Amino acid sequence: MNSITMKLQADELIMMALKEDISSEDVSTNAVMKEEELGQVDLICKQDGIVAGLNVFKRVFELLDEKTYVEFYCKDGDRVKNGELMAIVKGDIRVLLSGERTALNYLQRMSGIATYTNQVAELLKDTKTKLLDTRKTTPNMRIFEKYAVTVGGGCNHRYNLSDGVLLKDNHIGAAGGVANAIKLAREYAPFVRKIEVEVESLEMVHEAVEAGADIIMLDNMTAEEMKEAVRIIGGRAETECSGNVTKENIKNITDIGVDYVSSGALTHSAPIMDISLKNLHRI
Amino acid sequence: MNSITMKLQADELIMMALKEDISSEDVSTNAVMKEEELGQVDLICKQDGIVAGLNVFKRVFELLDEKTYVEFYCKDGDRVKNGELMAIVKGDIRVLLSGERTALNYLQRMSGIATYTNQVAELLKDTKTKLLDTRKTTPNMRIFEKYAVTVGGGCNHRYNLSDGVLLKDNHIGAAGGVANAIKLAREYAPFVRKIEVEVESLEMVHEAVEAGADIIMLDNMTAEEMKEAVRIIGGRAETECSGNVTKENIKNITDIGVDYVSSGALTHSAPIMDISLKNLHRI
Amino acid sequence: MNSITMKLQADELIMMALKEDISSEDVSTNAVMKEEELGQVDLICKQDGIVAGLNVFKRVFELLDEKTYVEFYCKDGDRVKNGELMAIVKGDIRVLLSGERTALNYLQRMSGIATYTNQVAELLKDTKTKLLDTRKTTPNMRIFEKYAVTVGGGCNHRYNLSDGVLLKDNHIGAAGGVANAIKLAREYAPFVRKIEVEVESLEMVHEAVEAGADIIMLDNMTAEEMKEAVRIIGGRAETECSGNVTKENIKNITDIGVDYVSSGALTHSAPIMDISLKNLHRI
Amino acid sequence: MNSITMKLQADELIMMALKEDISSEDVSTNAVMKEEELGQVDLICKQDGIVAGLNVFKRVFELLDEKTYVEFYCKDGDRVKNGELMAIVKGDIRVLLSGERTALNYLQRMSGIATYTNQVAELLKDTKTKLLDTRKTTPNMRIFEKYAVTVGGGCNHRYNLSDGVLLKDNHIGAAGGVANAIKLAREYAPFVRKIEVEVESLEMVHEAVEAGADIIMLDNMTAEEMKEAVRIIGGRAETECSGNVTKENIKNITDIGVDYVSSGALTHSAPIMDISLKNLHRI
Amino acid sequence: MNSITMKLQADELIMMALKEDISSEDVSTNAVMKEEELGQVDLICKQDGIVAGLNVFKRVFELLDEKTYVEFYCKDGDRVKNGELMAIVKGDIRVLLSGERTALNYLQRMSGIATYTNQVAELLKDTKTKLLDTRKTTPNMRIFEKYAVTVGGGCNHRYNLSDGVLLKDNHIGAAGGVANAIKLAREYAPFVRKIEVEVESLEMVHEAVEAGADIIMLDNMTAEEMKEAVRIIGGRAETECSGNVTKENIKNITDIGVDYVSSGALTHSAPIMDISLKNLHRI
Amino acid sequence: MNSITMKLQADELIMMALKEDISSEDVSTNAVMKEEELGQVDLICKQDGIVAGLNVFKRVFELLDEKTYVEFYCKDGDRVKNGELMAIVKGDIRVLLSGERTALNYLQRMSGIATYTNQVAELLKDTKTKLLDTRKTTPNMRIFEKYAVTVGGGCNHRYNLSDGVLLKDNHIGAAGGVANAIKLAREYAPFVRKIEVEVESLEMVHEAVEAGADIIMLDNMTAEEMKEAVRIIGGRAETECSGNVTKENIKNITDIGVDYVSSGALTHSAPIMDISLKNLHRI
Repeated sequence: MNSITMKLQADELIMMALKEDISSEDVSTNAVMKEEELGQVDLICKQDGIVAGLNVFKRVFELLDEKTYVEFYCKDGDRVKNGELMAIVKGDIRVLLSGERTALNYLQRMSGIATYTNQVAELLKDTKTKLLDTRKTTPNMRIFEKYAVTVGGGCNHRYNLSDGVLLKDNHIGAAGGVANAIKLAREYAPFVRKIEVEVESLEMVHEAVEAGADIIMLDNMTAEEMKEAVRIIGGRAETECSGNVTKENIKNITDIGVDYVSSGALTHSAPIMDISLKNLHRI
Repeated sequence: MNSITMKLQADELIMMALKEDISSEDVSTNAVMKEEELGQVDLICKQDGIVAGLNVFKRVFELLDEKTYVEFYCKDGDRVKNGELMAIVKGDIRVLLSGERTALNYLQRMSGIATYTNQVAELLKDTKTKLLDTRKTTPNMRIFEKYAVTVGGGCNHRYNLSDGVLLKDNHIGAAGGVANAIKLAREYAPFVRKIEVEVESLEMVHEAVEAGADIIMLDNMTAEEMKEAVRIIGGRAETECSGNVTKENIKNITDIGVDYVSSGALTHSAPIMDISLKNLHRI
Repeated sequence: MNSITMKLQADELIMMALKEDISSEDVSTNAVMKEEELGQVDLICKQDGIVAGLNVFKRVFELLDEKTYVEFYCKDGDRVKNGELMAIVKGDIRVLLSGERTALNYLQRMSGIATYTNQVAELLKDTKTKLLDTRKTTPNMRIFEKYAVTVGGGCNHRYNLSDGVLLKDNHIGAAGGVANAIKLAREYAPFVRKIEVEVESLEMVHEAVEAGADIIMLDNMTAEEMKEAVRIIGGRAETECSGNVTKENIKNITDIGVDYVSSGALTHSAPIMDISLKNLHRI
Repeated sequence: MNSITMKLQADELIMMALKEDISSEDVSTNAVMKEEELGQVDLICKQDGIVAGLNVFKRVFELLDEKTYVEFYCKDGDRVKNGELMAIVKGDIRVLLSGERTALNYLQRMSGIATYTNQVAELLKDTKTKLLDTRKTTPNMRIFEKYAVTVGGGCNHRYNLSDGVLLKDNHIGAAGGVANAIKLAREYAPFVRKIEVEVESLEMVHEAVEAGADIIMLDNMTAEEMKEAVRIIGGRAETECSGNVTKENIKNITDIGVDYVSSGALTHSAPIMDISLKNLHRI
Repeated sequence: MNSITMKLQADELIMMALKEDISSEDVSTNAVMKEEELGQVDLICKQDGIVAGLNVFKRVFELLDEKTYVEFYCKDGDRVKNGELMAIVKGDIRVLLSGERTALNYLQRMSGIATYTNQVAELLKDTKTKLLDTRKTTPNMRIFEKYAVTVGGGCNHRYNLSDGVLLKDNHIGAAGGVANAIKLAREYAPFVRKIEVEVESLEMVHEAVEAGADIIMLDNMTAEEMKEAVRIIGGRAETECSGNVTKENIKNITDIGVDYVSSGALTHSAPIMDISLKNLHRI
Repeated sequence: MNSITMKLQADELIMMALKEDISSEDVSTNAVMKEEELGQVDLICKQDGIVAGLNVFKRVFELLDEKTYVEFYCKDGDRVKNGELMAIVKGDIRVLLSGERTALNYLQRMSGIATYTNQVAELLKDTKTKLLDTRKTTPNMRIFEKYAVTVGGGCNHRYNLSDGVLLKDNHIGAAGGVANAIKLAREYAPFVRKIEVEVESLEMVHEAVEAGADIIMLDNMTAEEMKEAVRIIGGRAETECSGNVTKENIKNITDIGVDYVSSGALTHSAPIMDISLKNLHRI
């Protein structure tokens, strides 16, 4: 995660997460550790996978005490193995104890997403189709989860409602049809944004192409319909396939030839990756 | 979710989640809907499960426009079925469109946790053992996730590091032994808190009971060891079993007779429950 | 300004502006007005122009007291005349006095920008070229200033660094050339964003077109060079002309045939429009 | 700008301005610059004027990365020339690119105000009259704009509604006359504040002097009336002349003998000073 | 407390105080009250005194639930008696229970300050000397405590370091003498502020008067010295007596003839006034 | 005060306190000190007592300028004497002047609480009864005031409504009796929390013991009743005595044999301890 994003977007969220976990003080630690004492602890992988979020993990401790030092033995995107030593954290033992849970909560979730994304992306690797995430992220976790998707080998769809135009059935209804929706969007939308339209029938595909959509999202179509849609579009717009795509069912769409497939499961249903801090000792 | 918790803890987080999704404006909606127009949309269940978070779902829309009205056909804790109409949301169509994703992101995740918790709790229902959550929650989601656990039939362990004392191996190491750790905690900790100690051997169980621990957490023990530990403790402290407990393996501990079993999976690995907003139309 | 943008982006900024002007209390008003007393005041135009920001003006008073009522006699985008009654504000006289300056500071600046933008846009009205703003906005005023540009008849360029890709000389240098910069951006950037490249020579124009840029910004070129650039591009990308464009010099580029011309002056140097609150009296 | 003001007032506003410009990430920079790389860039003056805000300019980069180093070749208040090298900024090229626009937006506006203020103040230099600013500042920019006025050679009127008493027509109306308004203010207002009254006729001048006003603001009076007012007051109160004062018309009041003249134009209508960052290169 | 001050300054502080007391939920109340239930409770005075802060008390409940209703039987500044019914609060019983402590913490402290201030002010009532507070307020309580002083019959000295000039020994030392300090302050300070100087000898009194100080603070002087100082000043500046003034020792300075006496004890050492909420019952 | 608590809880409150005292700038200091100049100042005790809050005192200056250095000659909990040199603060003289009042406001209040607490605790030293604080703290000062109580030799009762269960008369009323209230709390409350019940009669004491209360608070009982209550309870629950306990009346309960006595006066009515910064000079 880039240092500017960390300063501008992540720091405030991480501080809030720390305050969520320590609303007055860490009673257990303060009871047994009255003074600063230097120690170190090992970050150990408990499950095979792709690691993501090491800088966020480190930042949790730095926000508690800037003198905390982390020595990494892997980097984001690396494939790690159960039992592998990923890093050593050194600093005030009270900081190591009080920051442990929050640091791991970020790292486990981000690595879980990277790992799951990677498994899905692997299934697409011999196709022209790229894997996209969605806006189905955990509230106040988007900056972390979208980053984890890229670490796992996926691409990011629009970040939020402000940086991309995606006209869904309701927008189309409001505008009175695909062609008019695209026209209104083109007039209104900041000119650097592409216009994507969600279509549900081959008729709408025709209409969208002719109205000049930049991207056409094929929603709830059968594999047959999607193939026909791709043929109709014939490269005049980019194509995206969408709808309950998971690791289990993605093989159904690998030969359709769409440019992109988007999957909400990458961020909303990836299980975490098990990682823990072990062997804390004084130094 | 109680209205005071909503005002004091949830509102700020929900507003941040909305700003995460709308950093300048909802370009698509603003392009096709220049003015306020009244509409309504159906909240439809797409998967069987236990619903949790209906008030949070509603609050998302209210924070965008206090005039938004939601009519509920179910309540938190209800078992809902695929296809069931859960609620109708009425208001400015722009609000319905712009709030949709954030509202669903909360509701789906909370309902997913309630559903998973409920499945695990069911497996314990004929035992004396109660199901607990942990602090392995998603950062900045704890207030929502811990609530969802209770909706699903679980109990909450301590909320955070400030409201409970749990002495783990590292605290015990720092204090120079179980007995001393408990003594230090008793001296230091605000007197209304119970003192829990994590033990890893029968020897430590003996020591903890004698030092007057209120709760003893049996960590990484075999079923045999745990049974022996419960016998040793003999009601002099409450007992908790901990360590990678999931829906799949919980049956292994149902006959041990511990008072509590805690499972991080309830909050860190429950898949979401699929719910969507459909049939938006003007009224 | 749309009500969702007001809630999510504007309210916090307006509250900060009010606190900037009232850090403890409004001493003058509190000295002479001990109790709530109803009054009204006229919003009077002191200069011809295009009005923008009426809802922001109103919101300032509502944030001080939700019972304040504003009756408008014009709407955003209207051409108003010196001496014209634009609105009447009714409410607690203390609110009218304490909110006056902040409300006018927003309205005057937004209307100044709309007026200036309109004058520039008028000079382009018989051409195919559309007027764009830039990121040269006043810090913490972008949401208001970009909106004012659209009210005046301009279009918005990207909102910020997150929602558009614009590769300038330094990005091109870092990437080792136009073609590689575009390739890297295409790989990295969320797929809904268009890719714009800034070019300074006809050679770079060729390279950008061939690399598939979506938009080509012609920077610091003579009118002759720009005409040649437009001919070379031949519709394969959109074109934007940029560089110190003002009301005074825009006529120089009206016959070049670019799709867009961007002007920082719209937001950084438009003089305010004079508007005042007069005739406060009890009711 | 003094370092305490920077920490307590400016830092938060600058961070908000940076987040306004980077709501998720700087897509263009991150696409072409994956890693930290050291570079430097020149700050070049493009227009003659008085510079103000160099520390704010520097602070923008430091808030992104505290290791950024700025070497200045001029200081606030210096008269700079078109083409002059004002400073060199060294640091992570990604920081230089991402912070550029926000840093310049502050520096250009502050220098524009200092330059315009200086031009007006020069016209008063052989008189006893001092130049004041007003509260007609850009929302959330007051701390920067009032400072820029002092750099340009102007003085600051009260900072906000909390630190000075200025009784205008509406306050006088509410109190039932000049004398009573002054009496109420003297009773109420924290005793360290002077009491200023706005008057519109010679009769009110008499009343204000006799009631013991500390400062009398002559509003909307002709030059003749103002001269008579100054004669009547005869040093028993300070005098301020107010009302649409600009560089163009200030000569009309130079021989009236008021102590102060206030001008809203200093902050609401000064054009920016053109300054840019050029020649970015690796080091 | 005026409604604008409440919105701009108090609301945020009150919300923080509520969150300080309810960091996740009110466990006791939520355990026994699952649903909203209407109730009412009496606000009873337990000690004679002057009441201050009734609107703050009410606002605490309104911020938890805007439907809470408070019926007052007294108003700020009233002398209340032990046993007196001051108000009735009606609303959701959970709100009454959860807001009780925070509401009382404000009301008791503010009423304690008003009561103590009133006792001190009474001792000055036949003199020309007015009672002032200081900046020795509790952090993040100034807006409440300074208001309480005025309710008790005291006046406010400057609100903070930004709205008044007070040159103490260290400022004088830095400037190289009283005369120069006053000269520098006059040049620098926004013109609406008076200049106060702290003096410790009769020699400094002479110097301060001649340099044109608006207010002279006599610090650590004997009663004899202060009388002589007042004689020397002879009305050419206002006079303030300062230094550990309390209810017990204020009689020592009543016949000196200073304009003001300031006392830190008003805000830093007034005991609270005992007030409680009793007789909660369903309605 | 522990460094993690300082980062997570105190820093934000201290920054707010500084902004409360410096809403735009420190006018007096900036008038006479245009540039950074190194100086030092002595922290002198003016009254005997127990010091608390030295790290908070230091942090105020560090938040204004991290280069400020404080050399301490005493530590929290030390008994200091009138006239004693407690510390020397070195740094930019402007920082020393601008931070002085806020730093002392914290230190004086915290030391006042520690001193008063210590006096009360001394009166209990030959008994088994421990001294507790309450939630009657100053709004937004709890983290500082509860810490000061421990420095003075007191213990902390629950921190807030979220980390302890205390069932008062109203909760008991709502639940329909002591036994049911305890039962509901046991079902609801996070299991690591003890359950305390407030009782007002010997009958309720019986009921509470039998229902399994962990702690029984004896409220408004005579000494005789309390002795009888302690006898009835017979060690089956902890006991707390509560109700207007002060330094003056605490001797009345020393021979009753309760485990704890709680006193709101520790935090709501302790007078401050007089401490000042003296002898500022350049170095």
